Amino acid sequence: MDYRRFFEDAIDQLHAEKRYRVFANLERIVGKFPRALWRSAEDTREITVWCSNDYLGMGQHPKVIAAMHDASSRMGSGAGGTRNISGNNHPLVELEAELADLHDKEAGLVFTSGFVSNEASISTIARLLPNCLIFSDELNHASMIEGVKRSGAEKRIFRHNDLAHLEELLKAAGRERAKLIVFESVYSMDGDIAPIDAIADLAEKYNAMTYIDEVHAVGMYGERGGGITDREGLSHRIDIIEGTLAKAFGTLGGYITGPKSVIDAVRSYAPGFIFTTALPPVIAAAATESIRHLKVSQEERRLHQQQAQLTKHVLAQANLPVMPSETHIVPVHVGDPELCKKASDRLLEKHGIYIQPINYPTVPRGTERLRITPTPFHSNELIVELKDALVEVWTALGIPFSTGEATPVEASDRVVTLAVSKAGG
Amino acid sequence: MDYRRFFEDAIDQLHAEKRYRVFANLERIVGKFPRALWRSAEDTREITVWCSNDYLGMGQHPKVIAAMHDASSRMGSGAGGTRNISGNNHPLVELEAELADLHDKEAGLVFTSGFVSNEASISTIARLLPNCLIFSDELNHASMIEGVKRSGAEKRIFRHNDLAHLEELLKAAGRERAKLIVFESVYSMDGDIAPIDAIADLAEKYNAMTYIDEVHAVGMYGERGGGITDREGLSHRIDIIEGTLAKAFGTLGGYITGPKSVIDAVRSYAPGFIFTTALPPVIAAAATESIRHLKVSQEERRLHQQQAQLTKHVLAQANLPVMPSETHIVPVHVGDPELCKKASDRLLEKHGIYIQPINYPTVPRGTERLRITPTPFHSNELIVELKDALVEVWTALGIPFSTGEATPVEASDRVVTLAVSKAGG
Ligand SMILES: Cc1ncc(COP(=O)(O)O)c(C=O)c1O
Ligand SMILES: Cc1ncc(COP(=O)(O)O)c(C=O)c1O
Repeated sequence: MDYRRFFEDAIDQLHAEKRYRVFANLERIVGKFPRALWRSAEDTREITVWCSNDYLGMGQHPKVIAAMHDASSRMGSGAGGTRNISGNNHPLVELEAELADLHDKEAGLVFTSGFVSNEASISTIARLLPNCLIFSDELNHASMIEGVKRSGAEKRIFRHNDLAHLEELLKAAGRERAKLIVFESVYSMDGDIAPIDAIADLAEKYNAMTYIDEVHAVGMYGERGGGITDREGLSHRIDIIEGTLAKAFGTLGGYITGPKSVIDAVRSYAPGFIFTTALPPVIAAAATESIRHLKVSQEERRLHQQQAQLTKHVLAQANLPVMPSETHIVPVHVGDPELCKKASDRLLEKHGIYIQPINYPTVPRGTERLRITPTPFHSNELIVELKDALVEVWTALGIPFSTGEATPVEASDRVVTLAVSKAGG
Repeated sequence: MDYRRFFEDAIDQLHAEKRYRVFANLERIVGKFPRALWRSAEDTREITVWCSNDYLGMGQHPKVIAAMHDASSRMGSGAGGTRNISGNNHPLVELEAELADLHDKEAGLVFTSGFVSNEASISTIARLLPNCLIFSDELNHASMIEGVKRSGAEKRIFRHNDLAHLEELLKAAGRERAKLIVFESVYSMDGDIAPIDAIADLAEKYNAMTYIDEVHAVGMYGERGGGITDREGLSHRIDIIEGTLAKAFGTLGGYITGPKSVIDAVRSYAPGFIFTTALPPVIAAAATESIRHLKVSQEERRLHQQQAQLTKHVLAQANLPVMPSETHIVPVHVGDPELCKKASDRLLEKHGIYIQPINYPTVPRGTERLRITPTPFHSNELIVELKDALVEVWTALGIPFSTGEATPVEASDRVVTLAVSKAGG
């Protein structure tokens, strides 16, 4: 039994499939976002990041950094224990109240990450319901899939955003059986949005519980940044709303909000919540500051949408194959893992533009893409620079441009004009 | 189907079993560790924490806090992405190199917590080995149990630290089958230590891989703080050494170190590593500072052991039922969940001393206890205060004292004298 061989084989297989991942060594620069230092084997260069999930640049917001400084000076660098054993800290208690308020729910519960919040909550909720049947969108995130698996519950996978399919499966299960529907609001690789209202209707009709992942929407959508459910006034129609503190809020951690009894049960029964050190007060304080800011400030959300629309428009005008997206996410189709990696490498080395290739298993084979995430800090000049660089790379590598018919983006001239005159950064 | 009823029932059950948990609302105070603010329903009071896992008080070390300030000023509050998609940050790369060096291993990999490092690594390693059989100590931590479960691999539970039982099970499996032994160095509820050398001998004899959790030992044992494997010169005999950044190192996060191929395979295949936002640079920088400090400074370790020994001695002298422990952990036996909770409440309310009750399922029923963790900052005066308070509580609640024969602690007078003359804080 030569153990190393198995691990080496596993790595070789990734190389063979051209999906071995090399992480770019980055150092973000406060005050210059989205610029960052990139350390390659040869040297260190300043580059532009075009694939950050710090969607609104809150990770460098002066108020958020000030909250960190203050909390670390007063309370130190760590929590010092699990939530139950000396690690429950006041900023975390405040953060949970803030989150419950954000989503108009009775209670909130914070985890060390969005991944853990999904895994721990879905598995615990489904385990506490006798003979629970889970209905899971086929494109749900890995963390939700882990939660479904760990629950041990039976599951039905419904076709992506397919209401007819979901209804068919719900009907077959019958009204009496415990049922949990798990889905996302914004799907992060395509940028499309779930029919939340209609899913809530089905849940009501067939008496199912609902669990939504708003990870790619919180902070960015809704009058107070409560996500798509906030924007559409649907918070009360979904039982559990899950989110992250690590994307638009610019820090770290994940959470659920919902009815007191459910939140208390997850708090009391989920190993992934119980047996781990609490989030440090310094992180909780920074997250609370970020949420509070985005509850009242509309500027970040406005500029974010504006620059995302402008990016889609400018790329589509240049016949780059922008995939349809209803949100701030701008996927550009490549369709081959090796080409996708090469495009990314060339963008970085030749143009100082960093966009990670998205390959299988993150997206289905044949739909490999560059996933671009404009922020309020990607100025019009940077957008034009990006377009020029992409055109050069597409041409040099022979990646197909779109045919030019029916551009999938409906950015009006009005948006573009607005953007050109007002864009930030 | 009344969903809330199930969750309410689940909570009622905890109340009925007297194991419903209420988290103390604490605010640590930099410069005054182990003092903290405690917010009760009525008021806010300053209390002494005697159950922190910030074992060395590094969570308030000026160097660590300075590293946080510096990193947040320069790099912001978050990583902004997963390790693969724009979240890989330079301080994290440095941290991983530091950890590999700490344990004399080829490579290191950082996770968002020690819990996730165990769950993700054990499950991934066991899944990559064909038909793997896992041998797991019966007292292993919940995070390791989750890892074993998620692997889907067959498992054998061996009696706690029982070499004969482990050998019997290994022998039955045969040399050819892939085998993984998972165990801890310091078991945190009893403070006993695994026979690492002998387990390594068995692993060699039967050709098994070994995975050790050093969460309650890193920073605290060994010439460089590399844990019990460091202290005993055994790092090279164990394949994977796992640890946390959230206890003695005073920050947040977890990690594994080991052979390059294994680390690379976990990095490439573990969903819990891949699909989650990276640890922020500010946390990584603080952790690195803490590790570097403890690699050279012996003072924290010396005082830690000294004050732990003194605590055991002083409590045992007062006939408090100190349970045997080979390490810095001082468990005091209560043996009943309700009494344990009452003792904890009385300590806090009457004496301003916070020690969380440890009940089932964290420890077996009938072994409920107060788990005391002295640090270098628990002065002799605080130790005497603790003893007096415990005696008052034990007397008031009628909790049995020990019979006084054969105190389980061998603290010599020399230790006590030393302590009284030199103890810190
Ligand atoms: C839909 C979705 N849910 C959950 C997560 C996990 O959140 P976190 O990064 O906070 O672990 C992610 C990505 O990271 C995600 O894309
Ligand atoms: C033995 C052991 N392993 C792992 C962990 C998890 O580490 P972390 O708190 O970093 O998640 C803990 C406790 O929290 C533990 O006691």
